[in-house]
Amino acid sequence: MSILTLLTDFGTTDYYVGAVKGTVLRLLDPLGDHAPRVTLVDLSHDLPPGDVEAAADLLAAAAPTFPAGTVHLSVVDPGVGSKRRILAARSGGHLYVAPDNGLLTPVLEPTAEIRSVTRADLFLAGPGATFHGRDRFAPTAAALLRGEPLATLGPEIDDPTLLERPRPRRLETAAGATFEGRVVRVDRFGNLVTDLPAAWLEARATEPTPRVEVAGHVVERWVAHYAELPDGAPGALVGSLGTVELSLRGRSLAERWSVARGETVRIVRPSPPG
Amino acid sequence: MSILTLLTDFGTTDYYVGAVKGTVLRLLDPLGDHAPRVTLVDLSHDLPPGDVEAAADLLAAAAPTFPAGTVHLSVVDPGVGSKRRILAARSGGHLYVAPDNGLLTPVLEPTAEIRSVTRADLFLAGPGATFHGRDRFAPTAAALLRGEPLATLGPEIDDPTLLERPRPRRLETAAGATFEGRVVRVDRFGNLVTDLPAAWLEARATEPTPRVEVAGHVVERWVAHYAELPDGAPGALVGSLGTVELSLRGRSLAERWSVARGETVRIVRPSPPG
Amino acid sequence: MSILTLLTDFGTTDYYVGAVKGTVLRLLDPLGDHAPRVTLVDLSHDLPPGDVEAAADLLAAAAPTFPAGTVHLSVVDPGVGSKRRILAARSGGHLYVAPDNGLLTPVLEPTAEIRSVTRADLFLAGPGATFHGRDRFAPTAAALLRGEPLATLGPEIDDPTLLERPRPRRLETAAGATFEGRVVRVDRFGNLVTDLPAAWLEARATEPTPRVEVAGHVVERWVAHYAELPDGAPGALVGSLGTVELSLRGRSLAERWSVARGETVRIVRPSPPG
Repeated sequence: MSILTLLTDFGTTDYYVGAVKGTVLRLLDPLGDHAPRVTLVDLSHDLPPGDVEAAADLLAAAAPTFPAGTVHLSVVDPGVGSKRRILAARSGGHLYVAPDNGLLTPVLEPTAEIRSVTRADLFLAGPGATFHGRDRFAPTAAALLRGEPLATLGPEIDDPTLLERPRPRRLETAAGATFEGRVVRVDRFGNLVTDLPAAWLEARATEPTPRVEVAGHVVERWVAHYAELPDGAPGALVGSLGTVELSLRGRSLAERWSVARGETVRIVRPSPPG
Repeated sequence: MSILTLLTDFGTTDYYVGAVKGTVLRLLDPLGDHAPRVTLVDLSHDLPPGDVEAAADLLAAAAPTFPAGTVHLSVVDPGVGSKRRILAARSGGHLYVAPDNGLLTPVLEPTAEIRSVTRADLFLAGPGATFHGRDRFAPTAAALLRGEPLATLGPEIDDPTLLERPRPRRLETAAGATFEGRVVRVDRFGNLVTDLPAAWLEARATEPTPRVEVAGHVVERWVAHYAELPDGAPGALVGSLGTVELSLRGRSLAERWSVARGETVRIVRPSPPG
Repeated sequence: MSILTLLTDFGTTDYYVGAVKGTVLRLLDPLGDHAPRVTLVDLSHDLPPGDVEAAADLLAAAAPTFPAGTVHLSVVDPGVGSKRRILAARSGGHLYVAPDNGLLTPVLEPTAEIRSVTRADLFLAGPGATFHGRDRFAPTAAALLRGEPLATLGPEIDDPTLLERPRPRRLETAAGATFEGRVVRVDRFGNLVTDLPAAWLEARATEPTPRVEVAGHVVERWVAHYAELPDGAPGALVGSLGTVELSLRGRSLAERWSVARGETVRIVRPSPPG
């Protein structure tokens, strides 16, 4: 319990991130005289304001790389101050603190222990009701980092708010197979990351090359890595989360095609001839 | 003395922030063979270049959340290399290092011990005179983190440069009360944070609703938190520093109204009828 | 071996930086139950995508400020997944991990020990071949942080890829001297940092003022620091790396002159009269 990750939409020009960290550190060591006992790791503070879906995906991709016992504090919280619950959960050996707005959707395993944080004695009486990051989330994370058992934070719940998102689909027909999914992320390099598992395709590697269709564009070139792409030619590859990704060498494919998150992606794999 | 916060306008694409941290770490542990003994916390490096006022406000909001004994290093320093003094101060149980340009204004309590850092033996002979962050501020912070007494850094002074800023005013008349202040910060969400203490209004909560006027716009809706606002309707609330804040749900009010820091804000509270 | 710096072009909105840090921390402490044993320092994650030259310069400027033994992990890696080697090196008392694409050029001293990392047992079998930051670079850095000898990582090499860049030149003639170099960096403040060593000029301080020419503009004002410049007047000074720098007070000179990295800079020092 010595690592805390932070994921917010607070940006990096306000005092918000500093206040969350300061509060955690103060609650762990009020006199400021201990050697460091927690490693703070910023996952991101630059998410689009209120973008719970982006936060959920980033958390789900980054969290599993951390050691067991890591506490992940995620605050993208358009409902701050309202009656929405604050959740603390243990799932897959990690601990999570987040608003109950769907942010934890992809990290909650079926066996997860989820609690609604109601320990009023933990909460700080900050001015206003607009900064629960400082006044409620930070103290909750500090309690977990201090080793307080999850069970002491509040009652267990089984109805967390979950994001409802379309799942990728596979349609098998006599003429071949079609896989339909979405662009779930445009990364900094302009790569289009989809939710289509590469494993769906790999099973029949000897068949005709699958064809990827996005926003009226067709990609038939498959490569193993970016540098294999000729300049100016888009290609498909297996991305770092095991899903199909579309890329353009040295430039943003998202910009070139004006494609954003949510765009439909279809992969058509013709049946082998004969 | 194991936490160091950093607040600069150095940005995140130059080597400047890394060099400040590297210098502090090197001076604390020249051989690089100790376990971590300091927690580095970035408050912000994305302040507008030379914006001492923004730095002062951010520092004043974030610093008190940290444990006593935290060292806060703030370098927004348009006068770097000139004769402007370097200050080290103890105030409210925290330690501060900053250029003498007003940056520390809001954190200096009347009882603060303020010293002009003149310990030439601390300073590094870096090339040029343009990077005191590396050559003078970092070594000063490292000295405090090592536990060197503040008194050894230089002579005590009582004339620090202070920012002169208009204070919010309250005018009581027979017809009611008027409070006049400013937008002191536009946050990442486009909220307009004012310097008008919410406490000025709360004292007479049973009276007619106060009316907020900014840049020709009038707000009469008061809410407790952002999510209480209907879409598209601006509202007023008590912000996270205890001052009045204006907000638009899910969008930037600053953009919609083209309002920036410094804009005058007036709150009019009519006298109760009869 | 308790400090790790990170330098990437991963940006701050993707999960990439978090995953690199999470992987390093997990490999150092799989059970997550140790006190912090490594200080993570971000040098930058906002480099232009694929800009190996900018990474090389930033690393060379920041790394020497850190204690001996610091591990510097730099991943600007357009060739990720290809056959390009992964290098681990000891140079000047520091340890470096980076792709073999020239990024380490300015930090490799003639006596550097450079190894091609081939320890397949270190590498992680992540999905795809697009995220060696997580799957290969992070485990290599973790091995060094754990104290594994450099020699165990792979065979020593003597042919690292090096950036070939024009060097600044000095031409002495009877009429005077001309120094020709480049703008190697535009910093956040819009200062034009050149590769012309200030020492080339200082040797003859009593001569007529050297004249700096950039993009059709001429600067003849030399100052010691930024604040010495009158408003609106560009000037030359000795920058924080000991090279000549051009600056405009309170504004971006790069914007005003539309000058970018790579622009030729010429300094003409007339011979003394008589």
